[in-house]
Amino acid sequence: MTKRKLRIGLIGSGFMGRTHAFGYATASRVFDLPFQLELTCLADISDETAAKAAEALGFARSTSNWRALVNDPDIDVVNITAPNAFHKEMALAAIAAGKHVYCEKPLAPLAADAREMADAAEAKGVKTQVGFNYLCNPMLALARDMIVAGELGEIRGYRGLHAEDYMADAMSPFTFRLDPAGGGALADIGSHALATAEFLMGPAAGAITQVMGDCVTVIKTRPDGKGGTREVQVDDIGRALLRFENGATGSVEGNWIATGRTMQHDFEIYGTKGALAFTQQRFNELHFFSTTDARGRKGFRRIEAGPEHAPYGLFCVAPGHQLGFNDLKAIEVARYLEALAGHQPEPFNFRAGLRIQTLVETIHASSRAAAWRDV
Amino acid sequence: MTKRKLRIGLIGSGFMGRTHAFGYATASRVFDLPFQLELTCLADISDETAAKAAEALGFARSTSNWRALVNDPDIDVVNITAPNAFHKEMALAAIAAGKHVYCEKPLAPLAADAREMADAAEAKGVKTQVGFNYLCNPMLALARDMIVAGELGEIRGYRGLHAEDYMADAMSPFTFRLDPAGGGALADIGSHALATAEFLMGPAAGAITQVMGDCVTVIKTRPDGKGGTREVQVDDIGRALLRFENGATGSVEGNWIATGRTMQHDFEIYGTKGALAFTQQRFNELHFFSTTDARGRKGFRRIEAGPEHAPYGLFCVAPGHQLGFNDLKAIEVARYLEALAGHQPEPFNFRAGLRIQTLVETIHASSRAAAWRDV
Amino acid sequence: MTKRKLRIGLIGSGFMGRTHAFGYATASRVFDLPFQLELTCLADISDETAAKAAEALGFARSTSNWRALVNDPDIDVVNITAPNAFHKEMALAAIAAGKHVYCEKPLAPLAADAREMADAAEAKGVKTQVGFNYLCNPMLALARDMIVAGELGEIRGYRGLHAEDYMADAMSPFTFRLDPAGGGALADIGSHALATAEFLMGPAAGAITQVMGDCVTVIKTRPDGKGGTREVQVDDIGRALLRFENGATGSVEGNWIATGRTMQHDFEIYGTKGALAFTQQRFNELHFFSTTDARGRKGFRRIEAGPEHAPYGLFCVAPGHQLGFNDLKAIEVARYLEALAGHQPEPFNFRAGLRIQTLVETIHASSRAAAWRDV
Amino acid sequence: MTKRKLRIGLIGSGFMGRTHAFGYATASRVFDLPFQLELTCLADISDETAAKAAEALGFARSTSNWRALVNDPDIDVVNITAPNAFHKEMALAAIAAGKHVYCEKPLAPLAADAREMADAAEAKGVKTQVGFNYLCNPMLALARDMIVAGELGEIRGYRGLHAEDYMADAMSPFTFRLDPAGGGALADIGSHALATAEFLMGPAAGAITQVMGDCVTVIKTRPDGKGGTREVQVDDIGRALLRFENGATGSVEGNWIATGRTMQHDFEIYGTKGALAFTQQRFNELHFFSTTDARGRKGFRRIEAGPEHAPYGLFCVAPGHQLGFNDLKAIEVARYLEALAGHQPEPFNFRAGLRIQTLVETIHASSRAAAWRDV
Ligand SMILES: NC(=O)C1=CN([C@@H]2O[C@H](COP(=O)(O)OP(=O)(O)OC[C@H]3O[C@@H](n4cnc5c(N)ncnc54)[C@H](O)[C@@H]3O)[C@@H](O)[C@H]2O)C=CC1
Ligand SMILES: NC(=O)C1=CN([C@@H]2O[C@H](COP(=O)(O)OP(=O)(O)OC[C@H]3O[C@@H](n4cnc5c(N)ncnc54)[C@H](O)[C@@H]3O)[C@@H](O)[C@H]2O)C=CC1
Ligand SMILES: NC(=O)C1=CN([C@@H]2O[C@H](COP(=O)(O)OP(=O)(O)OC[C@H]3O[C@@H](n4cnc5c(N)ncnc54)[C@H](O)[C@@H]3O)[C@@H](O)[C@H]2O)C=CC1
Ligand SMILES: NC(=O)C1=CN([C@@H]2O[C@H](COP(=O)(O)OP(=O)(O)OC[C@H]3O[C@@H](n4cnc5c(N)ncnc54)[C@H](O)[C@@H]3O)[C@@H](O)[C@H]2O)C=CC1
Repeated sequence: MTKRKLRIGLIGSGFMGRTHAFGYATASRVFDLPFQLELTCLADISDETAAKAAEALGFARSTSNWRALVNDPDIDVVNITAPNAFHKEMALAAIAAGKHVYCEKPLAPLAADAREMADAAEAKGVKTQVGFNYLCNPMLALARDMIVAGELGEIRGYRGLHAEDYMADAMSPFTFRLDPAGGGALADIGSHALATAEFLMGPAAGAITQVMGDCVTVIKTRPDGKGGTREVQVDDIGRALLRFENGATGSVEGNWIATGRTMQHDFEIYGTKGALAFTQQRFNELHFFSTTDARGRKGFRRIEAGPEHAPYGLFCVAPGHQLGFNDLKAIEVARYLEALAGHQPEPFNFRAGLRIQTLVETIHASSRAAAWRDV
Repeated sequence: MTKRKLRIGLIGSGFMGRTHAFGYATASRVFDLPFQLELTCLADISDETAAKAAEALGFARSTSNWRALVNDPDIDVVNITAPNAFHKEMALAAIAAGKHVYCEKPLAPLAADAREMADAAEAKGVKTQVGFNYLCNPMLALARDMIVAGELGEIRGYRGLHAEDYMADAMSPFTFRLDPAGGGALADIGSHALATAEFLMGPAAGAITQVMGDCVTVIKTRPDGKGGTREVQVDDIGRALLRFENGATGSVEGNWIATGRTMQHDFEIYGTKGALAFTQQRFNELHFFSTTDARGRKGFRRIEAGPEHAPYGLFCVAPGHQLGFNDLKAIEVARYLEALAGHQPEPFNFRAGLRIQTLVETIHASSRAAAWRDV
Repeated sequence: MTKRKLRIGLIGSGFMGRTHAFGYATASRVFDLPFQLELTCLADISDETAAKAAEALGFARSTSNWRALVNDPDIDVVNITAPNAFHKEMALAAIAAGKHVYCEKPLAPLAADAREMADAAEAKGVKTQVGFNYLCNPMLALARDMIVAGELGEIRGYRGLHAEDYMADAMSPFTFRLDPAGGGALADIGSHALATAEFLMGPAAGAITQVMGDCVTVIKTRPDGKGGTREVQVDDIGRALLRFENGATGSVEGNWIATGRTMQHDFEIYGTKGALAFTQQRFNELHFFSTTDARGRKGFRRIEAGPEHAPYGLFCVAPGHQLGFNDLKAIEVARYLEALAGHQPEPFNFRAGLRIQTLVETIHASSRAAAWRDV
Repeated sequence: MTKRKLRIGLIGSGFMGRTHAFGYATASRVFDLPFQLELTCLADISDETAAKAAEALGFARSTSNWRALVNDPDIDVVNITAPNAFHKEMALAAIAAGKHVYCEKPLAPLAADAREMADAAEAKGVKTQVGFNYLCNPMLALARDMIVAGELGEIRGYRGLHAEDYMADAMSPFTFRLDPAGGGALADIGSHALATAEFLMGPAAGAITQVMGDCVTVIKTRPDGKGGTREVQVDDIGRALLRFENGATGSVEGNWIATGRTMQHDFEIYGTKGALAFTQQRFNELHFFSTTDARGRKGFRRIEAGPEHAPYGLFCVAPGHQLGFNDLKAIEVARYLEALAGHQPEPFNFRAGLRIQTLVETIHASSRAAAWRDV
């Protein structure tokens, strides 16, 4: 049985562009995908950059004109991994051209833009995805399944975190991540922590209903890359107190100046019958405490990812061998393709991306107002 | 050379009363104390309880009348380990009788009471101490020394926590810890987290200047111990966003319904040059990241308590052997006695205890007002 | 510039066959490989199995006749991932046909066979590789670099381990891993521990010169898969005491009945100036102790894999994101291709595979003789 | 009810002498001891040393003549914490004088001496104890209880270790621990690992029946403390392969040149139904894997010491607060006193100490013979 072809266009070939390409390569071997993939075209800022990347990453063609790519009739899906400021324009163009769009997070610098994008996609009937790859970890699926199954009882408390240190050096230059519109630690990586919070808490505790934010700019100026300095307006640390629908409370932090931290995407969830603790630093493990364990035998249990935790088994038949970061992207790719094939709903579409953006902005607004805000 | 005698009276022989007694026993062997100790009298609620405890804990006499104890001319120091509601009355009486007073935390249910106690002690010229024993850990002294020495650079961020689960079961009955005046998780154990925060941050980042609190009652009623139920008014979880004098920001949480946690008194401190991470769950370790380590060789370093970290060496000449919880109390005792002998200032006197109480109340007030409050 | 084509044939599509295919897919995106790869043909035991696997894994053709594959003029490299008993026959045939051969470990059930294979390859001038993928971990390269650079001082002691539990259940049926010729835990996974030991110790402490083995069969019979039972002759646990050229000593264990362990491929190395500790359970970390750290600041340092640890940076530009097990195979693939292109010596060729086999057999012989044996 | 007096004499006031004194002080508060203790006399090498120590440690009298102490009619129990070479002479004298004897490990440099001591004690009818304090950890009691209760199923494998680094520096001078008779890492600390091995394995797997030792002197000469050097004859690392009565196998290592290690007294035990892992570096935790946990939920569980693990609850009513090293000695003291009161058999008497000594010597003999030896 021959599979339908799916023709991929990729915009951007930096950190995430490469990761997307790796994701396609891995997904097409590891999963029994519903499509036969063709890596049709890659766009980047110059012909040379694009051509080099296309060759390295296995794309048939390349272009320095992303508009050509999104309008290319030979392309079915557009992957957007360019800086945040371009997401909206690129996505809207692609949607207008009837393409499915798989866009990196954050969906757009502003929630209003993100809403426009979600609306456009839905109006056009194309399928979308936003790249919150940490949600693709089988251990997060396990955590959610356990919560849904009631293994933690009623959920009472949440602690979430995404801290790294790649902006900790005051001499690290201005980048798109510092863009006054939509930049900052909370938007850049705190958004991951928010996505994880709602992914896990949602089915049992409901959505985040109220936030009290505190966003601070610690490094007030950065080198502008041209020998001068530039004022920074966005947050280096964004914290928020949270309330969920069921009354559970929690906190979340996005922090890119956490010296020494590379991937402190952590959560702890406390329920009446159990608790979970997780760190992305060791993301093939989930720590589970159950009050139902025998007396004198209770304790947090280090569950290692294995074939019982789908889709781990497709990557490796033996437990404990571990997935890597790029494998999470491969899972993300595979899920999106299943959605494109109509086998399941979109796992994290633009509407979901908008939701995260709304949370980010509400926290920002709350921080400015120094007051709680409803989401 | 014979040492001056110091005659101790202890009120209460529960969890902390025993720990105080253990602390004296250990301190008098481990340290070269400035006094010869006499455990003179122990008071508890009944003659029988008091007598039994006095025998077990090595006190010469016992009484069911704590007023007799605080007025006993043969007593120099009064240790108060009765429930919070009694702290003020007992301490004021002891101070009036000219005794030095070593009181368990929290100093009093209300800051106003704590202020009265601090004022009284200072007016009378007696020396006081409040039992924030986690501060006596050599690894906290190390952390503070490192911060003071600039090994972390400028301090930017703080995360503090004290979470346990001894109140997680909704069926656990009403106790003094739930007293509407001064009870709750924030006061009971969040206070430890606040004390640690200011102990560590103080010398480099300054005091906490502003707080935004969020205190929630999760379990709304508890068994009253008489077959009925009683409404709970105090917080089960108390969180706060923090600002320090130098502009550093942070967060803190006190939580006694954190299922599975027994001693999650943790902190993480981030500076421009390094970071520290600590958990009381493994309190003989301090994890230190330094940006000055060589390229490709950086990482959090697990420093184990050893003789370089005074006063560990008095307990054990070999590193890595580990202190226990009760040893922290012995250190607390020893420090107090040094202060009583005039060798050093009081390490954590009633004025310091008032400070913590003020922080707790300001967080409560902030939570009620849903607004930031200056401390 | 167009790259030369390299045409791959793969025999076997089980656990390792898939991993090889994943390795090629990933390597060709992540690395700038010296060849353009063509996945030409896949052989397995039946036409159907082979065809299905070829489609899933992206091979152009398939066959149930591995001899056809090894003699196919359109194939340059033969990957052997069939059970151990076939390695020799398949490899010799491929070598005879002038193919480069990339064979899974163990190279052959018996060292004599492995020697024949190594000799044949060298005589024919083809390039070979054996799949000791754990050696491809950037953190092992780091460990070795540190040792070579003298960061540990003179090496004195070694502890190595490879323990899993996939054979712990006495009801798990007979497989090729239990083959009386060449089977057993020591050969199957202890061999990984031996490879790691010599990889790390070799440059500084020299080769293993003497062994004292102890190999035990714990589960004496296993289901034969046909309703009966079959006697097991091979070891479930294989331990050895070791001596290295420089006089350093150590121990090693291979164990496939270590209940609860999935990937306990661990080592600890002790030198005069430092130490290293590692577990494959968290294989993106290397723990390093240095005596040159400041007084009171010493401790094992958790170094996380990052771009400083090549080739991690090709997979991910950000540190701490982590490689997965399959990524190790991709590195293995890439290294082999560099060797095929003549850019570097074969990283782990049949001669090296023979060495491991010799170590395994010497440990077996030592165990039988209950006496030390020279290697 | 007044308790019988028990009058204690202590020989030695170094590391262990102090620890014994701390143990008595703590035990008499924490436990309801069957005796009223009197610290009667302390002996050390000079009048001054002894007097100072006696004052610090609370002994009524002191002497530089240990023979006077052992013959003192006012003494019931003699604690021996002098260097190994004196243990025999002191213990025999004390036994002859009808004293109960509590001697530090190793019981004597040579097993023959240890046998003489055990025989003498039994002949005289006095009660004895040897200081294998790590066995007094409630988590070891838990481990043993779990094994006895069958929670691990049939025991198959054991790994034991006691590694430190206090002799890692080749410039650290000659001490009694290097004494050609009875010195060395295996005797000094490997003995702890052996004691733990038999304590845990004994009830389920039986005693160690055969050993294959490998003992090596890594640092061949040490400063003699007088400006010259002295040849070292004893082992810096002692390893052994083990067989137990039930057929289980294992390994053990004693190592005092393990750079960076302070208290690596570890074990792992593998059974058909579960496994245990422990490190003295975090000795208030026991890690337990059970095959009976639910599918996809299995993992090593970190059990924290708490009141369910007697006698932890006497030290602290709240779990997770942790015992310290000195608390283990207090437990050891308390157990011995219970034995002296006839409430239980001696927990680890001279006969048990002889057993460890025999194991050490058998490993030494096996190492010299390069052959397995029956124990
Ligand atoms: N899901 C995740 O965990 C992560 C997501 N991201 C997201 O991915 C996006 C890209 O980030 P990085 O890959 O780190 O940035 P990057 O700077 O490494 O890559 C951006 C790429 O876009 C290209 N580009 C820029 N302008 C373009 C234009 N006008 N037309 C075509 N190409 C253009 C650049 O040349 C470059 O190749 C961002 O939205 C970011 O937030 C980034 C890192 C992690
Ligand atoms: N520093 C720390 O880490 C800890 C501090 N605490 C503090 O110690 C204090 C006592 O707490 P626990 O020992 O846990 O309580 P507990 O209930 O175990 O002990 C209280 C003791 O006070 C006695 N008592 C009550 N009323 C009395 C009266 N009128 N006169 C004489 N004795 C009386 C009780 O009989 C009992 O012996 C509290 O203030 C608590 O906040 C408690 C636990 C840990
Ligand atoms: N490097 C590593 O970490 C690992 C290496 N291995 C090694 O890989 C090899 C294969 O092991 P697994 O993949 O686990 O076994 P497996 O049983 O999963 O796969 C073996 C494959 O070979 C095929 N096969 C068997 N006989 C064949 C024949 N005559 N012609 C063609 N194909 C044939 C089977 O149908 C199957 O597809 C073994 O040598 C093993 O030691 C296995 C696991 C891990
Ligand atoms: N159970 C355990 O974990 C440990 C046990 N030990 C054992 O304790 C014993 C002592 O070791 P440490 O305390 O480390 O040594 P140390 O050198 O610190 O103390 C020895 C003490 O004995 C005294 N002494 C020496 N000769 C004497 C004599 N003739 N008469 C009276 N006193 C004399 C010394 O002056 C010193 O006070 C050894 O047998 C050692 O193996 C030591 C450390 C840990």
